Amino acid sequence: MSSDNMNGELKVLNPECLPLAPMGAGGGAAGETLCIFGTGDLGRSLGQRLVQSGYRVTYGSRRPDNCGLIPQGAQVMNHAAAAQSARIIFLCIHREHYSFLQTLAPQLSGKVLVDVSNNPEKDMFPEANAVYLQRLLPEASVVKALNTLSAWGLQNGPSDANRQTFICGDSAEAKQAVSEVCTRLGLWVVDRGGVGASQELEDFPLQLFPEWRLPLSIAVGLSAVFFIYLLIRDIIYSYVEDGKDTSFRIMVSLANKVFPIVSLIMLSLCYLPGVMAALLQLHRGTKYRRFPDWLDRWMLCRKQMGLVALGLASLHVLYTLIIGFRYYVRYRVGAGIISQVLKNQTTEFSNILAWRTDSYYSVGILGFALFIVLGITSLPSVSNTLSWREFSFIQSKLGYVTLFLCTFHGYLYGWDKFLRLSSYKWYTVPGYLLSLVVPTVVLGLKLLLLLPCVDRRLTRIRRGWEDTPQDSSERKLLI
Amino acid sequence: MSSDNMNGELKVLNPECLPLAPMGAGGGAAGETLCIFGTGDLGRSLGQRLVQSGYRVTYGSRRPDNCGLIPQGAQVMNHAAAAQSARIIFLCIHREHYSFLQTLAPQLSGKVLVDVSNNPEKDMFPEANAVYLQRLLPEASVVKALNTLSAWGLQNGPSDANRQTFICGDSAEAKQAVSEVCTRLGLWVVDRGGVGASQELEDFPLQLFPEWRLPLSIAVGLSAVFFIYLLIRDIIYSYVEDGKDTSFRIMVSLANKVFPIVSLIMLSLCYLPGVMAALLQLHRGTKYRRFPDWLDRWMLCRKQMGLVALGLASLHVLYTLIIGFRYYVRYRVGAGIISQVLKNQTTEFSNILAWRTDSYYSVGILGFALFIVLGITSLPSVSNTLSWREFSFIQSKLGYVTLFLCTFHGYLYGWDKFLRLSSYKWYTVPGYLLSLVVPTVVLGLKLLLLLPCVDRRLTRIRRGWEDTPQDSSERKLLI
Amino acid sequence: MSSDNMNGELKVLNPECLPLAPMGAGGGAAGETLCIFGTGDLGRSLGQRLVQSGYRVTYGSRRPDNCGLIPQGAQVMNHAAAAQSARIIFLCIHREHYSFLQTLAPQLSGKVLVDVSNNPEKDMFPEANAVYLQRLLPEASVVKALNTLSAWGLQNGPSDANRQTFICGDSAEAKQAVSEVCTRLGLWVVDRGGVGASQELEDFPLQLFPEWRLPLSIAVGLSAVFFIYLLIRDIIYSYVEDGKDTSFRIMVSLANKVFPIVSLIMLSLCYLPGVMAALLQLHRGTKYRRFPDWLDRWMLCRKQMGLVALGLASLHVLYTLIIGFRYYVRYRVGAGIISQVLKNQTTEFSNILAWRTDSYYSVGILGFALFIVLGITSLPSVSNTLSWREFSFIQSKLGYVTLFLCTFHGYLYGWDKFLRLSSYKWYTVPGYLLSLVVPTVVLGLKLLLLLPCVDRRLTRIRRGWEDTPQDSSERKLLI
Repeated sequence: MSSDNMNGELKVLNPECLPLAPMGAGGGAAGETLCIFGTGDLGRSLGQRLVQSGYRVTYGSRRPDNCGLIPQGAQVMNHAAAAQSARIIFLCIHREHYSFLQTLAPQLSGKVLVDVSNNPEKDMFPEANAVYLQRLLPEASVVKALNTLSAWGLQNGPSDANRQTFICGDSAEAKQAVSEVCTRLGLWVVDRGGVGASQELEDFPLQLFPEWRLPLSIAVGLSAVFFIYLLIRDIIYSYVEDGKDTSFRIMVSLANKVFPIVSLIMLSLCYLPGVMAALLQLHRGTKYRRFPDWLDRWMLCRKQMGLVALGLASLHVLYTLIIGFRYYVRYRVGAGIISQVLKNQTTEFSNILAWRTDSYYSVGILGFALFIVLGITSLPSVSNTLSWREFSFIQSKLGYVTLFLCTFHGYLYGWDKFLRLSSYKWYTVPGYLLSLVVPTVVLGLKLLLLLPCVDRRLTRIRRGWEDTPQDSSERKLLI
Repeated sequence: MSSDNMNGELKVLNPECLPLAPMGAGGGAAGETLCIFGTGDLGRSLGQRLVQSGYRVTYGSRRPDNCGLIPQGAQVMNHAAAAQSARIIFLCIHREHYSFLQTLAPQLSGKVLVDVSNNPEKDMFPEANAVYLQRLLPEASVVKALNTLSAWGLQNGPSDANRQTFICGDSAEAKQAVSEVCTRLGLWVVDRGGVGASQELEDFPLQLFPEWRLPLSIAVGLSAVFFIYLLIRDIIYSYVEDGKDTSFRIMVSLANKVFPIVSLIMLSLCYLPGVMAALLQLHRGTKYRRFPDWLDRWMLCRKQMGLVALGLASLHVLYTLIIGFRYYVRYRVGAGIISQVLKNQTTEFSNILAWRTDSYYSVGILGFALFIVLGITSLPSVSNTLSWREFSFIQSKLGYVTLFLCTFHGYLYGWDKFLRLSSYKWYTVPGYLLSLVVPTVVLGLKLLLLLPCVDRRLTRIRRGWEDTPQDSSERKLLI
Repeated sequence: MSSDNMNGELKVLNPECLPLAPMGAGGGAAGETLCIFGTGDLGRSLGQRLVQSGYRVTYGSRRPDNCGLIPQGAQVMNHAAAAQSARIIFLCIHREHYSFLQTLAPQLSGKVLVDVSNNPEKDMFPEANAVYLQRLLPEASVVKALNTLSAWGLQNGPSDANRQTFICGDSAEAKQAVSEVCTRLGLWVVDRGGVGASQELEDFPLQLFPEWRLPLSIAVGLSAVFFIYLLIRDIIYSYVEDGKDTSFRIMVSLANKVFPIVSLIMLSLCYLPGVMAALLQLHRGTKYRRFPDWLDRWMLCRKQMGLVALGLASLHVLYTLIIGFRYYVRYRVGAGIISQVLKNQTTEFSNILAWRTDSYYSVGILGFALFIVLGITSLPSVSNTLSWREFSFIQSKLGYVTLFLCTFHGYLYGWDKFLRLSSYKWYTVPGYLLSLVVPTVVLGLKLLLLLPCVDRRLTRIRRGWEDTPQDSSERKLLI
């Protein structure tokens, strides 16, 4: 391809020139030349993949004669010549060197610049790399791409887990051209909009479960507190008072108390902020004032909170289902039977006990089953197929039924234990009672909100009605 | 931005004018002015979000001087002036007022009109709101968008659960421009095609599990019938005949009979329509005639039917796994051992009983495991990665194996019970026998269809072969 | 529509002509005429659906007067006339007849040709059908579409399971036009790039779990080997040596040994190739040399390997949870109690045994729970929301913790059994010991790689550092 020809074609990318047809038509031609600036590890890996995919690759380098290993078949030139050779240029250089590109502004005008960069940390710079680059070179079309791929994926080709890659940029034509290249590399491109979306794309590879931190911290914190609390009540108490070593109970019995307690509390914490927000709106008489920041943040991690609660509930189920064949339980059951035989007395079958325990299990199973349904509907692909009405039906209506069943399960478990003085070892309250406090409060407040007079007012407020005429001071709170 | 400049830019949106470049290039500029018609709750919420996202917002209102609270920074004008100020206009007004927009036709010509409306009910109007609007204003580019969002999502920004939004419209450029705005609001836009897809988008927020109603009704109906049937056989019978109160069995034992019975019947109901359709095609000798409506509807809810059956099967598994430590079971086991000791007689270990019960459990577990695999592959994100061949392999081949295993599990459970007269209390048939009728019929018919001679004919029919020459009367049935 | 008008509109599709506006604008008009070449089964089914969706359909046929049943309302013409009548032409003919289309080149110039073909087998032809077609008719815009749909989906409309369809082609405008038609048929179109992606699209309907074959073969092979091994040790040994028939143990006890053994081995096989790759890189001192093919292939099926292992682990859990109420177990427990009573001796409660068994269960449950988390994150919709950093955190860090817990579970199960001579029946090693070999090796090697000195060198190599200066012979290995 002669340079003249290329320039003719490349004008397309300059949004001010016409026509744009050749871009779409000739764009995907195998053997097209692509340019890479930078011969470091990233540039080499990318170049190797591009060559393997049938492209011709030219490298732009400061020292074309001495730049280490490059993939066979690729050419190395100085930056200006390399830029001339292709209409798409991949920048495999650090952001600090972007300013140097301004010296190449004439050669880069009308080109597609693919910014694949990532920063080692968040918020290192006031603006995203790609935005900065587009500001430096307004005549070029900057496309942010490939930065969400792992080095492995870039080098060895995408595996099933990471075929999806994001792209953004202001020029639809430039994005289309880069998409074609990505498709040829075996990737599935998802368009995320204009270059303004770069910040999100650059933050993406750095994130490590940001929205899971609060829920997981709460889970770990509560678990630790209840573990120590129950360790004192169940193990240390019986060692100190009765001299019995029941430390083996830590592994299963204690775990199977901590998990359900924390799970129930966390499930209720999913519904507490919604109730609080409703009360706040009722009190303020308007929905147009923002909630406090902590309430906003709390509401945004309800899903993760619920999933952690579901995980703990699942552990509770597994720990419960092994009861039937635990050595300790078998031993006690056997010992009980033997002592009955030896004393020659049989206990009477208690219908009430049968009713209570069976109800306790049954309610728990139904609650857990609904909890699983809640979990399944929060899978991205499932919740995406749900309309908002369906999603809120499940997460709100079914969610409260789940909370009610699980709380009821807790009450049935306790039954009349709280009346017995022996439950209050060392003046402490049984763990299960503590776990019922928050759910009971949430369910009580929810019932309050469902009272017709309260519900009517809340509904009106949520439809935009306001209690008081607005004065200018309140108006400022709007934004 | 001067009004002249805007008009120059906006010509792009009119499909008859060129060039289209500036749309893609300048479209995403922060500080761009967007217009909103309507200062009601929706208009205010949307405007607030747009201002927060860095846009300038002008409201069009009939009474610009007296229109209540609007977000700070936004301007209110009359409709004509507001329309002039922006190239994208969000319509936050009711469909009934669309006809009024015709008076603004000159100002709206070439603009992007974003229809965010929803109707309170389905099928209120003969055509979708956006289609109606496009017909009223053929010179404008109507884009249906944002209507699938919840009010919460629109006001507070999208959370994880509802970032995805649908868009449709006839002009690709207009859709692109609206997409950019949506992206800036943090949404992920999915293009659903031309404005003709509006009906689907407008129906979406109204739907409440339409395809789940039939399966759930069947599940509830069958459960109620079998619950009463088994209540009479298991509880009332023993109360009337033996005077024993076994009502506690309702909570677990009875539930654990109803769930597997209904689950097995519903699983077989997933495969019955396919078998019936094949028989119908064999009988008709052609595949070009439509199935009766009820059969079509039945076939369309097979997936949901199967998932309800899976849910009930999972409940059955959970209810079964607690058997080992139920009070009632423990009591009976203990009492049995004690009576053996007292009578000084030990029962012999029965190899046959061990074989039978272990096989019964094992077959049930394998059937349930395959059932879970069927459930996982019907998750949207999983079934989307499957080719049609893979999907049909799993849902058909593996499905029949699952049905066979579960039916076999039922037969092993019953074993020779059906031979004992005591099983027919008050001349009623045991529940498990009733649950085996439909699956046995389905498996029998499927075997019939697999006979080489039948299979060959069916395959030919499905490849387009027809049994009889077509006369003109049958030809009309085609459509 | 007059033919003149059509030609005017159709020039758009020829990439060399302008303007392209009318395509986007008038493209979706209901009542538009579409053309189908071929009146076989596929052509008839497709035509029927198109007519039902509101399109006018013209068939191109060699013998327009005698071509069998066509949908009511459709017209049949000769190929040239049919091609003139529409701008989109669906080719429902076999690849072998494509060459005939060259004779129609003038009429097809500028048209959108939709290639819906599939081949009965992979790799029958050197190039994809659509690529071949595009080469034959360079003046037309070939779009590959609809070939991934089932015949059922094409004829009866898409159901939930297969609404998604893939499309590819070099002309964005042609793809847009075909997308509109697909959308009207109720499909969700996913763009896969240029016509070069056709091969992938044509292979898609033929694939039957290609990446699952190796893992499933390994699972079946290992299961068979261990089944026979354990059959000899557990059943045949006791029959031969003690004359006892314990064959009933096959159904549950034996299965519950085979499943966990194979599951643990396969879980460790997921991590072995990663460790081997690291060792290879350490040895070679560079990451720029390709891994052997078998290692590459092994690495690519790790996900499937892990999911098979998870399935087997789930079976192990279910088989374990029924222990509490198996007839055999109940009988033995009862017999044990009775013999204690008769001998009038009670066994002492063993704290150590309680610790060991409870730890064994607890570690197993935690390992299984983490394993489930690994499984959930490999669902496509979940792994797509994860950044690479998050994905690798879960699959690598959490994965190794899972492997460690499951291996530890195995050691706790065995405890001191390996010291007892009675474990080595007929000089064979207990099955659980065999299952611990590979996991122990993998965990050991991983520990080695985590040593600071080794880790530092590996990290440097993975950042692109190379141990030795490159000579030209090594350079050739790059590609």
